[in-house]
Amino acid sequence: MPRYYRYLGELLENGFERISSDDLSRRMNVTASQIRQDLNNFGGFGQQGYGYNVKFLYGEIAKILGVEKTHNVVVVGAGNLGHAIAKYPGFDRRGFNMLGVFDINSSLIGQKVGDLEIMPVSKLKEFIMGEDIDIIALTTPKEAVEDIISIVKDSKVTAIWNFTPVDLKAGPDILVENVHLADSLLTLSYKQQMRKNNKLE
Amino acid sequence: MPRYYRYLGELLENGFERISSDDLSRRMNVTASQIRQDLNNFGGFGQQGYGYNVKFLYGEIAKILGVEKTHNVVVVGAGNLGHAIAKYPGFDRRGFNMLGVFDINSSLIGQKVGDLEIMPVSKLKEFIMGEDIDIIALTTPKEAVEDIISIVKDSKVTAIWNFTPVDLKAGPDILVENVHLADSLLTLSYKQQMRKNNKLE
Repeated sequence: MPRYYRYLGELLENGFERISSDDLSRRMNVTASQIRQDLNNFGGFGQQGYGYNVKFLYGEIAKILGVEKTHNVVVVGAGNLGHAIAKYPGFDRRGFNMLGVFDINSSLIGQKVGDLEIMPVSKLKEFIMGEDIDIIALTTPKEAVEDIISIVKDSKVTAIWNFTPVDLKAGPDILVENVHLADSLLTLSYKQQMRKNNKLE
Repeated sequence: MPRYYRYLGELLENGFERISSDDLSRRMNVTASQIRQDLNNFGGFGQQGYGYNVKFLYGEIAKILGVEKTHNVVVVGAGNLGHAIAKYPGFDRRGFNMLGVFDINSSLIGQKVGDLEIMPVSKLKEFIMGEDIDIIALTTPKEAVEDIISIVKDSKVTAIWNFTPVDLKAGPDILVENVHLADSLLTLSYKQQMRKNNKLE
């Protein structure tokens, strides 16, 4: 679904009003029958021979993805990765409001990340409560993870977008989505190695 | 495999010499039988009742992952994300040498990213050839992707670690590993929404 949402968003930006499953199939490199199956699961937006209404479909998928509502996000960890996340283009228009950046390093406090001022972790709990934060993007070193989790527990936060190399267990009420960069690079290297082995055989 | 590699690396750092599949199971939150199955696929490193030799297993998995060799990597795109990737701790010790950072923006050329100086994209092809680069980490805006791919084609690069929001098609000789940050955040939001719907039912 996120991938459909991304492609439909691009089509919308480029002024497309309708798109056939065949055309979408070519663009997304997915079979047309897969597309019809995926999209019919969510209520059958297509009409035979007429294609999908891009804007309508985009809106319906937005509802499914929970982005017709806005989400309030803070980034914890103001290193390079934290900066990259806080300033990543395109989150805004998908309904993700970056509302704060936090760090434990006192020399960073008060510095700007885009429009946001870096705040001390000691103010994180208060901020989460006051601003209805529901997502934490976590980009700290692994040593800091436990402290942050203990702050986040029992708050309104329902999801952690985890960039640390730790497989988080944040309890039953908090969803975790992991982006393990080192694992991803190793996966690439693994595939390279497999391919090399296949060629040598 | 990347996940096993990460856990075993941590065990090694913490001085563990042997580990049982039960202990590894608890740490990784995977069943012990799954662990035995995964690791036996790669040659049966374990001995009944005695556990795995952490160092040996780590080395064997390193070979499987292709990291007993070193990989030479350049980052193309010296924005926040490019900085984060170029300076990400722990790539070195896994055998990934970050050898260069490139950007098209002339005001960035010559600035430092850690020990590396930002170089102009016009020198990318020459650099790739001279330094035996086999992996490109791509963190440019999507508008630049096509140009970079045309530079990278017909070089020694065999893999692209792709952070752009484009689903790359780089040809049959180049592997692509995608890290779509926006898709990842949408996945999180989707899961949040599903959970909310389930609670309301």
